[in-house]
Amino acid sequence: MKKTYLIPLAGAVAILPTFALAQDAAPSFDEIGPYIMTTLLFLVGGFLVFWMAAGFAMLEAGLVRSKNVTMQLTKNIALFSIAAIMYWLVGFNLMYPGDFNGYFAFNFVPTSLEPVGLAAADASLDYASVASDFFFQLMFVAATASIVSGALAERIKLWPFLIFVVVLTGIMYPISGSWQWGGGWLSEMGFSDFAGSTIVHSVGGWAALAGALILGPRIGKYKDGRVHPFPGSNLALATLGTFILWLGWFGFNGGSQLAAGTVGDITDVGRIFANTNMAAASGAVAALILTQVVYGKVDLTMVLNGCLAGLVSITAEPLAPSLFGSLWIGAIGGVIVVFTVPMLDKLKIDDVVGAIPVHLFAGIWGTIAVVFYNSEASLVTQLTGIVAYGVFTFVAAAIVWFILKAVMGIRVSEEAEINGLDTSELGMEAYPDFSKG
Amino acid sequence: MKKTYLIPLAGAVAILPTFALAQDAAPSFDEIGPYIMTTLLFLVGGFLVFWMAAGFAMLEAGLVRSKNVTMQLTKNIALFSIAAIMYWLVGFNLMYPGDFNGYFAFNFVPTSLEPVGLAAADASLDYASVASDFFFQLMFVAATASIVSGALAERIKLWPFLIFVVVLTGIMYPISGSWQWGGGWLSEMGFSDFAGSTIVHSVGGWAALAGALILGPRIGKYKDGRVHPFPGSNLALATLGTFILWLGWFGFNGGSQLAAGTVGDITDVGRIFANTNMAAASGAVAALILTQVVYGKVDLTMVLNGCLAGLVSITAEPLAPSLFGSLWIGAIGGVIVVFTVPMLDKLKIDDVVGAIPVHLFAGIWGTIAVVFYNSEASLVTQLTGIVAYGVFTFVAAAIVWFILKAVMGIRVSEEAEINGLDTSELGMEAYPDFSKG
Amino acid sequence: MKKTYLIPLAGAVAILPTFALAQDAAPSFDEIGPYIMTTLLFLVGGFLVFWMAAGFAMLEAGLVRSKNVTMQLTKNIALFSIAAIMYWLVGFNLMYPGDFNGYFAFNFVPTSLEPVGLAAADASLDYASVASDFFFQLMFVAATASIVSGALAERIKLWPFLIFVVVLTGIMYPISGSWQWGGGWLSEMGFSDFAGSTIVHSVGGWAALAGALILGPRIGKYKDGRVHPFPGSNLALATLGTFILWLGWFGFNGGSQLAAGTVGDITDVGRIFANTNMAAASGAVAALILTQVVYGKVDLTMVLNGCLAGLVSITAEPLAPSLFGSLWIGAIGGVIVVFTVPMLDKLKIDDVVGAIPVHLFAGIWGTIAVVFYNSEASLVTQLTGIVAYGVFTFVAAAIVWFILKAVMGIRVSEEAEINGLDTSELGMEAYPDFSKG
Repeated sequence: MKKTYLIPLAGAVAILPTFALAQDAAPSFDEIGPYIMTTLLFLVGGFLVFWMAAGFAMLEAGLVRSKNVTMQLTKNIALFSIAAIMYWLVGFNLMYPGDFNGYFAFNFVPTSLEPVGLAAADASLDYASVASDFFFQLMFVAATASIVSGALAERIKLWPFLIFVVVLTGIMYPISGSWQWGGGWLSEMGFSDFAGSTIVHSVGGWAALAGALILGPRIGKYKDGRVHPFPGSNLALATLGTFILWLGWFGFNGGSQLAAGTVGDITDVGRIFANTNMAAASGAVAALILTQVVYGKVDLTMVLNGCLAGLVSITAEPLAPSLFGSLWIGAIGGVIVVFTVPMLDKLKIDDVVGAIPVHLFAGIWGTIAVVFYNSEASLVTQLTGIVAYGVFTFVAAAIVWFILKAVMGIRVSEEAEINGLDTSELGMEAYPDFSKG
Repeated sequence: MKKTYLIPLAGAVAILPTFALAQDAAPSFDEIGPYIMTTLLFLVGGFLVFWMAAGFAMLEAGLVRSKNVTMQLTKNIALFSIAAIMYWLVGFNLMYPGDFNGYFAFNFVPTSLEPVGLAAADASLDYASVASDFFFQLMFVAATASIVSGALAERIKLWPFLIFVVVLTGIMYPISGSWQWGGGWLSEMGFSDFAGSTIVHSVGGWAALAGALILGPRIGKYKDGRVHPFPGSNLALATLGTFILWLGWFGFNGGSQLAAGTVGDITDVGRIFANTNMAAASGAVAALILTQVVYGKVDLTMVLNGCLAGLVSITAEPLAPSLFGSLWIGAIGGVIVVFTVPMLDKLKIDDVVGAIPVHLFAGIWGTIAVVFYNSEASLVTQLTGIVAYGVFTFVAAAIVWFILKAVMGIRVSEEAEINGLDTSELGMEAYPDFSKG
Repeated sequence: MKKTYLIPLAGAVAILPTFALAQDAAPSFDEIGPYIMTTLLFLVGGFLVFWMAAGFAMLEAGLVRSKNVTMQLTKNIALFSIAAIMYWLVGFNLMYPGDFNGYFAFNFVPTSLEPVGLAAADASLDYASVASDFFFQLMFVAATASIVSGALAERIKLWPFLIFVVVLTGIMYPISGSWQWGGGWLSEMGFSDFAGSTIVHSVGGWAALAGALILGPRIGKYKDGRVHPFPGSNLALATLGTFILWLGWFGFNGGSQLAAGTVGDITDVGRIFANTNMAAASGAVAALILTQVVYGKVDLTMVLNGCLAGLVSITAEPLAPSLFGSLWIGAIGGVIVVFTVPMLDKLKIDDVVGAIPVHLFAGIWGTIAVVFYNSEASLVTQLTGIVAYGVFTFVAAAIVWFILKAVMGIRVSEEAEINGLDTSELGMEAYPDFSKG
């Protein structure tokens, strides 16, 4: 952080009187401004999406029982760290291979950054710095893995889960991501998923669903033909996590504009922020009203999930809708959550935090809803994309889960589950000073 | 998030050799740079102020008793969501009507955003995008509602509170806000309130005061002629909430510069950040020292509220003061809190989190303090503004509270209050695993 | 926040047809763009580093026992506030004195900001606004003080600790900081410490080490020749704190580029973000694997500290390494923590949160690791810097601690320590509603 007191070259040259000279020596802001602004968008958007990792960790730690909190926290910080390494090692270049066959790129190379002190002449002035782009994109893959950790909480072993994360973040997500964002076959076909209702959220949901089916429900959850609620241990944390996710989503959707250096682009980013906020608000209000009407009292965890479902719903097309469009798209997301959480329970699919309703079901809805405001999107293509991501991810995830189950087992012992994973697996309680009720 | 590999038009044109041509085809950064930077300021400032919603939620959840935490969290996420919808539906256009009579604009229209991909020729190049402006401004109205929820915690019913929020955020705040920020009569008169010590914070405080008087104190708070402290259940959350608010305040005050694309504007934003930070620090230190001196030991909740009072105090004029000016203005804010919290208790006005001292009393102080550093402000005008906002908000709020009380009742039953709102009203505890001491 | 409907001067002039005229009246973005972007970098970087204060507070509040949480929170918000005031009063100008003897600047003047509405002609167009620079730099000194508060938790008295903070943030840190970042003797010698592995983190660690030795371990920690673990009371908070610190570190390292307005600079900031993230991830994964291998189970607190050690390790040179370089530099940081935490316990040095391994030992490692990727750095110079900061800070801190011990005592009574500092010193529990296990 040393300040230099020399006048840097760019500054010195910029004050020269004639435009022609400045043009020769230092590039004009007309040339470099868009690159600088878009790179900045990726850095700010990226740190906001990074922050979602903390949001998932708090949400999930708040929704599990206190005997499993340390484990849930461990899984969340570990999965983000593993995702960051795997996406560097293979994921980023698998997903953005440049020219490829459209289905699978044999491009297993780690990410390299541009050199220090890049010259303007060597930069992609029409886009942004590679490092900032990599930084932004890697945050998305981590979100996918976080979705899985929530659904499978309180019963899955640590290491098999982390191995699944290795495969999901290094291979599965990048391959299916390349179909659309890498310029692959779905992109050619005209599929539309602006920031990833399907590509990120449904993919996480499908992987979670496969895991939940193979892993089975928690002991006692569906005993004697009834659904036994296992209340979350810390709703303040869960609410904090939801607010963090909401905040991070401005980066998630806004950064996905992928440009910020023209009037049109920065204005669009503003539209996306306003629409994203509206959909979150309307998803929360829909769940608020609906739980009051249906159950006779408001259910905070449903309000939190309704808010998140609103966010997932608007993610496939946060730019084109009006504010009113965002309102109803988000509200339907909230409604979906209120009705599908009990539906999963009826099917005895045990999703601890409601990740499948929020990310998979609202993700499908959001991807369909694109057709209402984006005139270039067709329902058939949207459904094709939804099905393609569903089949690929569900099958691939199921195969990985089955292999892990066969090789090392994926579920903790019955005793460990009853005592809680914190003492049995990690030997460390999250709240050791507080006696349990 | 698909990357396109075509060179966008702006980039292609910018490298053309002559300025004249570039001027014709793509606007120069000299024209569009300020618009882009100010829009960015609103987006970054806006997400920071959004984050304050989480701050209020954590602060209030930490300062209520554990039996009311779920309710407090529910109110906070609900009020933000409702504010977002109401400000879109009517608030924004009521508050910024353009040309109007200066007192009340009959302008009940929802907010519309500019079209996708706005052309530079159609943009307000001297300001910022409508969407970013709307996004930024709506965050302020939510803060006002959060202030009310803290003061009235632990005894008010959920739905009457939320109906009050509908009126406050859709009608009351926008009307009084239009007097100054919409270019109305107080603005004509020369009233000065940079980021809202009065317009946001005192307004929230007046509405809370009216509610606290009509609602009455919590059962047992002023029993047998003594004040019984009801300690907050989670001071870690309360401290987290304070830090979140402090962080968000950089956006609150800094974004209120409303411009960031010139040397003068961005430098002013920096001044505002530094002054805001100083006032928070000095408010905290003042309360730290004063509680040690007066009570013989430091009181953390007073330090937190002192910090917040410092922030409220500097909000009316965070630009003009020197760092030393910010220090003493903030410190007096901290002193005000330490002396007025017990004063309210003496008057048997039960303000659960200290919202009235922090937001109303320090807000009044901050609005008066403008005259010390801003030579264009007059004490008479400042007092006129303070009184105008006070009378209007207190009376309007009281009317709404009385109607709500008459129509549906605003207070939970005695039994519900004693058992806690979480089990009695919502059937969901915030910390179900921990036995109560 | 009043919107004006006049066209501001800059905007009006920018649409004039000829370049020459625009040049005369309003400076071109080619001149002012870098200043605006770098000022913005400091503001965004600064609020991110501010956020680290909350991170330290949550981390430390989560790692102490529940009976000392209020005290830990109080220390953290107080130390930040004091640091903000002291750095204004003397620190900033001691640290950045301009021309000086290289060892100690007799420059005891408070910081002044530039005037409101600075004209471009009066601005340091090659750098950034003074206020933004001050805002950014003051956040660093607060981090140093936070490190000390963690190590000495659960036994040090409040006021002597705060007096130490006054000296550390007003005098000690600024003096030693001036040797490098103020352009002093170490900078002349070619020492390299990009964002402060040594200058910030090791300095905090040395001050903490001196304090820990003089203060002695907590009662019962090393009883009967065994190390007794005192588990942290809230690992959810500790994990939240770690995520906050990780997020803040993007500002810490990225902002230390000190420039963002050219293609080279913004690209470098992107590199720094990506490298910083990688080192955090690899530090966490290293601790994850190592604790599994060495102890047979994963230790979450080690994973958190491994992550932080990865961040400290990359801080001396977050720009030059490749992503792979950042991976192994960070991973070694994680390894250092896993091995040195028990080592300190063997030496009966009681560091409550592991601050000395994380900030001092990983800080030394990071400062040495500079030589692997920065060809201008020499091992001898790096070691010289490490030793110089170590000797100065350890000796100066020890003197201050001894004086405080002699004058007012630094340790609470045995009874107070056993009962907890919250009830005995502050009369306020952090979690009064929860019975202790």
